[in-house]
Amino acid sequence: MSGLSSLPTPSALVDADRLANNLVRMQSHVDSLGVRLRPHVKTTKCVEIAALQRAAGGRGITVSTLKEAEVFFDAGFTDILYAVSIAPQKVAPALALLRRGCALQLVVDSPAGARAVVDAAAGRRLQPQVLIEVDVDGHRSGVPPGSPRLIETARVLHEGAAVLHGVMAHAGSSYDCRGGEALRALADQERTRSVEAAVRLRDAGLPCAEVSVGSTPTALAAERLDGVTEVRAGVYAFFDLVMAGVGVCTPREIALSVLTTVIGHVPERGQMVVDAGWMALSRDRGTASQPLDQRYGLVCDEAGDVIEGLLVLAANQEHGIAGWREGTAGGDLEARFPLGTRLRVLPNHACATAAQHERYHVVRGTAVEADWPRFSGW
Amino acid sequence: MSGLSSLPTPSALVDADRLANNLVRMQSHVDSLGVRLRPHVKTTKCVEIAALQRAAGGRGITVSTLKEAEVFFDAGFTDILYAVSIAPQKVAPALALLRRGCALQLVVDSPAGARAVVDAAAGRRLQPQVLIEVDVDGHRSGVPPGSPRLIETARVLHEGAAVLHGVMAHAGSSYDCRGGEALRALADQERTRSVEAAVRLRDAGLPCAEVSVGSTPTALAAERLDGVTEVRAGVYAFFDLVMAGVGVCTPREIALSVLTTVIGHVPERGQMVVDAGWMALSRDRGTASQPLDQRYGLVCDEAGDVIEGLLVLAANQEHGIAGWREGTAGGDLEARFPLGTRLRVLPNHACATAAQHERYHVVRGTAVEADWPRFSGW
Repeated sequence: MSGLSSLPTPSALVDADRLANNLVRMQSHVDSLGVRLRPHVKTTKCVEIAALQRAAGGRGITVSTLKEAEVFFDAGFTDILYAVSIAPQKVAPALALLRRGCALQLVVDSPAGARAVVDAAAGRRLQPQVLIEVDVDGHRSGVPPGSPRLIETARVLHEGAAVLHGVMAHAGSSYDCRGGEALRALADQERTRSVEAAVRLRDAGLPCAEVSVGSTPTALAAERLDGVTEVRAGVYAFFDLVMAGVGVCTPREIALSVLTTVIGHVPERGQMVVDAGWMALSRDRGTASQPLDQRYGLVCDEAGDVIEGLLVLAANQEHGIAGWREGTAGGDLEARFPLGTRLRVLPNHACATAAQHERYHVVRGTAVEADWPRFSGW
Repeated sequence: MSGLSSLPTPSALVDADRLANNLVRMQSHVDSLGVRLRPHVKTTKCVEIAALQRAAGGRGITVSTLKEAEVFFDAGFTDILYAVSIAPQKVAPALALLRRGCALQLVVDSPAGARAVVDAAAGRRLQPQVLIEVDVDGHRSGVPPGSPRLIETARVLHEGAAVLHGVMAHAGSSYDCRGGEALRALADQERTRSVEAAVRLRDAGLPCAEVSVGSTPTALAAERLDGVTEVRAGVYAFFDLVMAGVGVCTPREIALSVLTTVIGHVPERGQMVVDAGWMALSRDRGTASQPLDQRYGLVCDEAGDVIEGLLVLAANQEHGIAGWREGTAGGDLEARFPLGTRLRVLPNHACATAAQHERYHVVRGTAVEADWPRFSGW
């Protein structure tokens, strides 16, 4: 165990206590609704954190790439939902994983996608479990629950070499919500439209064992999940400033931060320069569309306590330009934060900021407890 | 050598011919101005590309992190300018590189920064070459050329254990310019303010051998560089949509693209989904502030020819939402680009998009000629 002062900058820090609290909070909420939680590991891409999620009660994991499936399967996770409509060219490597013993569930959202899966599976005498993605909020992808394509897609799977396992949905527009009422309404919409799709399948004589829904905001806002079997969520492990803006956490619960050093001052403009630019923070500006724009991130002291009104205002590749939010009388930056001062920056979007780093330094207070690798690529 | 169709998606592609042309174009322009070109390797972070830049006539390299300095020194590059004001904590590892034989030039922009360098160097009996960063456009960091801090900083270096080597500037605001006239004016401002700083140093009896300036737009726009000794530029190797918007290249010259596959269609909204989301494209939306907003990127066919009006409109982590630019009558997406169709996406900002990838697949036409690793981290 070493101290925070031994770490180079910029570095990604994970606050162990906050992480543990965040995992417990989501797990106990989903438990209380009587459904399973299948954590999405795309946020953290870290075997150690997925193991904590499993220990907290998570059942299986969700992934967004085949590489995530492969890495986590090799690390002992066997129950994996690959929650992105599969490209025809990726069916063969996915089936190879299935053959190795991975209970890998696939997702499609069209008859053509279903056809690519069953054709490849038939040739290999395999029968993958497949979910159909349902579009519940016009956000991204999926079949509208009332569309004839839902039944067509299901028939291709059911009549071909696949197990029609159920439906899945992601109310991604929850990131644009503000506050409890809007989130509760969207959570209910995610649930009812997913269940509507399941009922349509069953009414057509087709199986639909699973109804998988989720996003961090809707998962935390949901008050009932009748008809749903599992919830997927990812960013809750770290939380971030976008989630704080949505209203599902406070900045004090954000477990991921970027440790940085003051490398210069620009007294002419009341700014200072830190060595965390967009390469360390990411280009994600998710809070730009929220009422409280946090620019490139909210600055904390080295111990992790928020410095009110201090933001990374702009970012070059390896330069962050920090300064006071308009209206904040925070005082002279050079006097308060001399050259070499170390600070932390809370991220707009944890998934994007984490992706800029190869490892997490796990801290408790100012002690560094562990160094967890994070992988990337496809 | 294999074909493009063998590559997984998403993948970063580098068009070998376009890269070669871009390198020649910048090198011959800078040659014609009678100064040295010191390519900035932060864009590509790839030893193979830096070697091409050296072969084209580049003299030394520019880096933005100590890790870049270390990796390139280990790969045989000995003349390196670390062009970010050094954090006090990084002086020791930088000096270790110097002791290993690297001609590593450091940058400071304050008396305190200079003091940190000379104190550490004196203790190690080393004498690093140091440049003072000059702020020529109020964009980021550096000392204003007329500020008393310029002379103060220089005296700390000159009287301490350092070689006061010169001044450097980066007119980063060139990224906000449009067209030749504005760029020529900014290039001249970058030059004159840098030279002004050099003259002030010399008038004070201080040495100033080097006057290093540069950004891709100002480097290409400069018509004379009297008083300047070297030009630094990085993004010109790849170019990108931001540079096309600034007016220094066309989309047909962009050497970096992301190969992607169509994974779904949303006929209800006239959109399709590709497997390049922001993880593969980056969150950079540099063209958002330009007259022609290219959203998350301009789409090309698999061979690299632009499909007029087809954009990645929005991005989730592993989903890109593609569709026609408003006003483009491009026809039915599903008919034209069926499931499994492979496309390329030109990036907003090559530095940011490249950073999302671990390797470049080097292509000529549809043949894959090589696989070049790219490093990341600090």
